[in-house]
Amino acid sequence: MSIRAEIHKQNLVKIFNPKSIAVVGTNNVKGTVPYDILFNILKTEFTGVVFPVSPGEKSICSVKAYKYVVDITDPVDLAIIVFPSAVCHLALEQCGQKGIKGVVIISAGFKEVGAKGLERENQLKQIAEKYDMSIIGPNCLGIINTDPLINLNASFARKMPEQGNIGFLSQSGALCTAVLDYAQAKHIGFSKFISFGNKVDISEIDLMYHLMEDDKTKVILLYLEEVTNGRALMKAARDVTKLSGKPVLILKSGRTEAGASAAASHTGSLAGNDEIYDAAFKQAGMIRCDNIEEMFNIAIAFAYQPIPKSNKIAIITNAGGPGVLTTDAAIHDGLQIARFSEETTREFRKSLPANANIKNPVDVVGDARADRYNIAMNGAFRENDVDAVFVILTPQSMTDIETIAKEVVKVSKQYSKPVYTSFMGEADVAVGVDILLRNKIPHYILPESMCRSFSRVYRFYRDIDKNPHPPRIYNDVDTQSVKTILDKAISNNHLYLTEDEAGEILKIYGLPVVESRLATSSDEAASVAGNIGFPVVMKIASEDIIHKSDVNGVKLNVQSSEEVIDTYKNMVGQVLQIKPEARIKGVQISKMILSGEEVILGVKRDPSFGPVIMFGLGGVYVEVFKDVSFRVAPIDEIIADSMIKQIKSYKILEGIRGKPQRDIGKIRECLMRLSQLALECPQIKELDINPLIVLDDTKGCFVADARILLNTQPRSDTNNSTINNN
Amino acid sequence: MSIRAEIHKQNLVKIFNPKSIAVVGTNNVKGTVPYDILFNILKTEFTGVVFPVSPGEKSICSVKAYKYVVDITDPVDLAIIVFPSAVCHLALEQCGQKGIKGVVIISAGFKEVGAKGLERENQLKQIAEKYDMSIIGPNCLGIINTDPLINLNASFARKMPEQGNIGFLSQSGALCTAVLDYAQAKHIGFSKFISFGNKVDISEIDLMYHLMEDDKTKVILLYLEEVTNGRALMKAARDVTKLSGKPVLILKSGRTEAGASAAASHTGSLAGNDEIYDAAFKQAGMIRCDNIEEMFNIAIAFAYQPIPKSNKIAIITNAGGPGVLTTDAAIHDGLQIARFSEETTREFRKSLPANANIKNPVDVVGDARADRYNIAMNGAFRENDVDAVFVILTPQSMTDIETIAKEVVKVSKQYSKPVYTSFMGEADVAVGVDILLRNKIPHYILPESMCRSFSRVYRFYRDIDKNPHPPRIYNDVDTQSVKTILDKAISNNHLYLTEDEAGEILKIYGLPVVESRLATSSDEAASVAGNIGFPVVMKIASEDIIHKSDVNGVKLNVQSSEEVIDTYKNMVGQVLQIKPEARIKGVQISKMILSGEEVILGVKRDPSFGPVIMFGLGGVYVEVFKDVSFRVAPIDEIIADSMIKQIKSYKILEGIRGKPQRDIGKIRECLMRLSQLALECPQIKELDINPLIVLDDTKGCFVADARILLNTQPRSDTNNSTINNN
Repeated sequence: MSIRAEIHKQNLVKIFNPKSIAVVGTNNVKGTVPYDILFNILKTEFTGVVFPVSPGEKSICSVKAYKYVVDITDPVDLAIIVFPSAVCHLALEQCGQKGIKGVVIISAGFKEVGAKGLERENQLKQIAEKYDMSIIGPNCLGIINTDPLINLNASFARKMPEQGNIGFLSQSGALCTAVLDYAQAKHIGFSKFISFGNKVDISEIDLMYHLMEDDKTKVILLYLEEVTNGRALMKAARDVTKLSGKPVLILKSGRTEAGASAAASHTGSLAGNDEIYDAAFKQAGMIRCDNIEEMFNIAIAFAYQPIPKSNKIAIITNAGGPGVLTTDAAIHDGLQIARFSEETTREFRKSLPANANIKNPVDVVGDARADRYNIAMNGAFRENDVDAVFVILTPQSMTDIETIAKEVVKVSKQYSKPVYTSFMGEADVAVGVDILLRNKIPHYILPESMCRSFSRVYRFYRDIDKNPHPPRIYNDVDTQSVKTILDKAISNNHLYLTEDEAGEILKIYGLPVVESRLATSSDEAASVAGNIGFPVVMKIASEDIIHKSDVNGVKLNVQSSEEVIDTYKNMVGQVLQIKPEARIKGVQISKMILSGEEVILGVKRDPSFGPVIMFGLGGVYVEVFKDVSFRVAPIDEIIADSMIKQIKSYKILEGIRGKPQRDIGKIRECLMRLSQLALECPQIKELDINPLIVLDDTKGCFVADARILLNTQPRSDTNNSTINNN
Repeated sequence: MSIRAEIHKQNLVKIFNPKSIAVVGTNNVKGTVPYDILFNILKTEFTGVVFPVSPGEKSICSVKAYKYVVDITDPVDLAIIVFPSAVCHLALEQCGQKGIKGVVIISAGFKEVGAKGLERENQLKQIAEKYDMSIIGPNCLGIINTDPLINLNASFARKMPEQGNIGFLSQSGALCTAVLDYAQAKHIGFSKFISFGNKVDISEIDLMYHLMEDDKTKVILLYLEEVTNGRALMKAARDVTKLSGKPVLILKSGRTEAGASAAASHTGSLAGNDEIYDAAFKQAGMIRCDNIEEMFNIAIAFAYQPIPKSNKIAIITNAGGPGVLTTDAAIHDGLQIARFSEETTREFRKSLPANANIKNPVDVVGDARADRYNIAMNGAFRENDVDAVFVILTPQSMTDIETIAKEVVKVSKQYSKPVYTSFMGEADVAVGVDILLRNKIPHYILPESMCRSFSRVYRFYRDIDKNPHPPRIYNDVDTQSVKTILDKAISNNHLYLTEDEAGEILKIYGLPVVESRLATSSDEAASVAGNIGFPVVMKIASEDIIHKSDVNGVKLNVQSSEEVIDTYKNMVGQVLQIKPEARIKGVQISKMILSGEEVILGVKRDPSFGPVIMFGLGGVYVEVFKDVSFRVAPIDEIIADSMIKQIKSYKILEGIRGKPQRDIGKIRECLMRLSQLALECPQIKELDINPLIVLDDTKGCFVADARILLNTQPRSDTNNSTINNN
């Protein structure tokens, strides 16, 4: 943990549990942020002391005001700064002098307004570091702690949320207002509610660790617009899940920006940023949500209910139609409809009316009252094959909605299995829904949302132990030689590595590069080919030619010495005809791999997440179906395996239409070695192995072509790094 | 139109606009269906006269009761039967005698309880036909007509919905209760609300035509659990859309049943029923919804707003975060963010504060009040590039929600462009949402739902003229010869057509079957091959062998007469070794098509929709990616084209990696010819052309292998219909 992170950790405790607060820059104008912040703190009956600081007022909201924060004689744990952005640094400096360690800056007018604002942020940062202070904000709504021992609403939100066990972190302040309003109607309670705005100092990472250790928080929700440090975010999410078992739900906006930023190179163009976010969040065990409704649908499932043992559900309904809809949705989301034992079936047959459906989904029929729901629920909870009970209600004329809701609460309290509900409708069912939500029974307007939410919860706990192991480190790598090659290329301002260099680096990292040698005459070519063994591939070798096929610079499947000699002459001639200025080194001869499946391996550096590994099948699978998978490096064997299995065309590697399985184990190894290379060689910007030819199981694979792009600015023409076109 | 349909059409007018109603089987027990139905009619102030019919009561709900319906001396337009199912037929018989033409049977206990109930339904049907009556139900909730001239709630729903222009048809009564409750809370009004239950007589088709002609109905919503006559449903939907321009929204449950019913043959196994529903609904111009929330989200967009001219939207928001979320969603759903003119930009720069974002999405900033929304909305509505305005609000501390809602209503009334809103949150925004919904402004809790709903509306009107043209009829088909072949095979109880027969039928229908002849000796084989031209494909010809490859009965790419002679001998020998009992007719010799893309064409008969045409690329595309498309026959050129372009691998046909485009025009023709064949030959149960080898553009294509399964029960061994294995 960095020194600043350590300082934040300590200061955050005081920020959220202050004994005294200064509201710096408040005023007496009702309906403005500086006033509302102070009034909210008073109105919520904050358990500590609050000091208004205002240059021009004697008192605000009946409380004595101070001209400067340094005028306060009592110690102050937390300052809330609401001054205009231009003078915030002055107020912060005084807070530092006063010895205040925790500061929330509400004011807008920083990074979001451009260069001037960014400069102001840097000023704040320097002051914070000078005094070992920690800042939340600027440009935020403020912070809320519902703990009754604290009772802090240091925000300009319209109201304090209910107490609960959801911790909410948001980069957008405005979204917070919508969330609080939504949550109020649904009786969703929060432990802490934090708007962190421009995160000049304290980031979502610090706050996640804080909530991890907060025993009032069971679920962490995060709304992010910008991932500044993707790796730190992943680590924090993993730590939270691993150390505390708390799920982290994330809503990330800006999905379609990605589509716009088409990357230049081949691998790059496939790696829309959003796919990398998807991969990274999943890899870190986070649950990505599509919108705030889905986020809270899942959050209440985690917050209110015990951990499900399996995905086997019982459905109880008073109507057939919704029973069918729910079964559809459950199957679609990978849930299992439990099978009732003889005993349960007998019990239902005895106690439910003859026209009831006593199989799962249980239909207690339209005129069902609470007694039938009671029988069905008790039976379902007791049934061994059932690990969660879904209760559905439609408001028919005989339905006693309120009593049934109370029955659901009463019965479900007697069991340790989760219960989920969907009282369909809105007006009449509201009284029942209110009872359910006040009693922390997850309720969903749509049975489809109910199934989906349970499915996400189930999969979270199922996968919680699949956190990555330390990746295998291959010690057979001569990193010094790699460094020499890269340094030389960079000092020569090459954009791409040459063919030989790229091949050499891959070889050093243990990747099975196909045998290849340069011939500088047609006779040498014939002799080289003879040594390598026919058939061979011949390719023009020239630093001036990137796309060899375009200049007829590639010939596959050359079968004999005579053909090699002819091809050499023809090729050099044709290339020079098309590109007379090209400096030709000779022709590269390599072994032709005759049968195997072509796959693509890639490395790309994401601005947020660093080195990302890509995998897919070659040709149309990648071009037409975009059937590729991504993972953030490092990747262990399990991750490598999951990224191979994720692609739809995986079946082809397993062997279809009578073909044998390909050497998937060797692909895994290549991916892991590539991951190590990506991490150890930051000089490499992008790397494509296209194709890696994969032979039958246990027979290995071969790098037939590769390209390495460097982190450098080229002076001259680009250089080619192809090992072996195919 | 059938005679019954004509009768229904006339009777439905009386059913929904009765001057007098008999409630047959009502009683005095409050809280039961027989009582509630009568009381609901009275409570809603039905504008006509109601007559209770009850064997044991003198009066019910203060209204004089009759022992039998025939005792009523006044004429009766509509009878609502609520007797137990066992005696409904007696009541119906009396209704017939009384001359009542329209009947709604509420009672349950029919088809849904098994064979006995089905028998009862048949009884009802016969009585209805005898008296030219029309029945809605049985096993339904009843019907509602909100027209103030009628005011009819002949249902046991808890309440009468608001008047509006949505017509709702539901097979499930219980779902109706949920829908009414949901709609009440959202001020969604209905023209007619009809629960049609087991549809023993009047079906959703009759009701759709009725709503088509109902000038109070603007949008038709349909919840279906079972499609009895898919083709009639498609025709009705097309007629409604074409003749009245009214959209038909459909929610079909039972999606996952399909997955379970794995069909036997190759094509069949790909054709999950749900995919066929998807294709058929789309083909008929219906809008399929995933759940009731989505259905009403889209319904209010149609019901409340004018037709959008384009998909260019302006977004107005008081917060950046939701602006980003909405932009993401809009782009994702294929909408365009409009570009503001110089004039609009100038106006916004002048009238909005400096920290507002005056580009689209317009951010009027967190402290915006109604005046800023007014400026932004007027500017957006006036802007030529904008064809719909999306207004977003987050409840920040300074936001005057109610006034802004009123402003949205006021301003949007002045323009003829659609407006959509999302006031995010739930509790505080409720007052604003209520104003919007009462004034028929579509409102969505989630901006994502807003974008999706608008997108569905936009696409409906964009595609409304893409209704199918009469399919081209190919007159070059000798249908008599086809009939002879099929009749013979069926009379011989063959399950599959033989190779020759299948090839012959396809040839007659103008499909380009590859040249092929049977050789009964090795010498004849050599001579046949010489005539056809090398290379050739050789395949064993035997009625006893279906899977030729399994017995080494196929040899591709045979290059010379000598090879043909050797292959003939070896093949026959090997086949007999593996399958000694096989009766071998000889070896089929056919031309080997060397280069082309392999596609699959198929015909399958769906129990609801009849002949369905399938298209996909062969091999892994169909096996691994399930990349196929379906359409219900007949298909015209536009539909054929759309089903070819729908598959992801279409790019391959267009030509990738330097390959030329394939002959897509010829595929279209093959699909249309196959569609004609499927419609004209009901004796054919399934047909697979696998592969059709497609050459380069304008070069045509070849049927290289086909299999035809007949609508017959086989007595003996199956026969093979392969034309040419490959």
